[in-house]
Amino acid sequence: MPNQSGLGPVGRVFQALADPTRRAIVERLVRGPATVKALAEPLTMSLPAVMQHLQVLEGAGVIVTEKVGRVRSCRIEPAALRMAEQWLNGQRTLWERQLDQLDDYLKEG
Amino acid sequence: MPNQSGLGPVGRVFQALADPTRRAIVERLVRGPATVKALAEPLTMSLPAVMQHLQVLEGAGVIVTEKVGRVRSCRIEPAALRMAEQWLNGQRTLWERQLDQLDDYLKEG
Repeated sequence: MPNQSGLGPVGRVFQALADPTRRAIVERLVRGPATVKALAEPLTMSLPAVMQHLQVLEGAGVIVTEKVGRVRSCRIEPAALRMAEQWLNGQRTLWERQLDQLDDYLKEG
Repeated sequence: MPNQSGLGPVGRVFQALADPTRRAIVERLVRGPATVKALAEPLTMSLPAVMQHLQVLEGAGVIVTEKVGRVRSCRIEPAALRMAEQWLNGQRTLWERQLDQLDDYLKEG
């Protein structure tokens, strides 16, 4: 992983979601919490590799992990996904407004 | 930039948006098209560095660039941002549904 410090909070979320394995983990966890073992099962990679992906997701605030006894479980932390969605929504709103203004201008012209 | 081929279309969009300079470029372009020169002006980096960021955005389908004479201009291609927003929206919908089901279960219990 490249250095994450300069990306900003929303940048870290986008960086975390860029990877297809990490998106697959998110797609699983939005259906409910899961243990690391259960998350690793469908993935064709080593447990340390899965753990590394989980660390990136946790570092970006996308998931929370908790260890109870010897079992580590993971769940979605929805605020991070909401932040990324809101940034995109904000850009779309501005773009559509700009388009409307262009449309008005062309109608007047 | 790391290798982009394995990220998938939505992954390339998230990767492109992870960088704060590239987000700043998008935030500028949703307000209307701009020349490369105009985009570079507020950024504290060399023109080749700006061009590299624009290439990543164009490769991810987030922007389109067009050269007319000696002037290259850039505009938003909204479909890519919409795709990323829809992925996030889909995850949120599933997560909220799961939460509702948990709520129903706890009320019944």
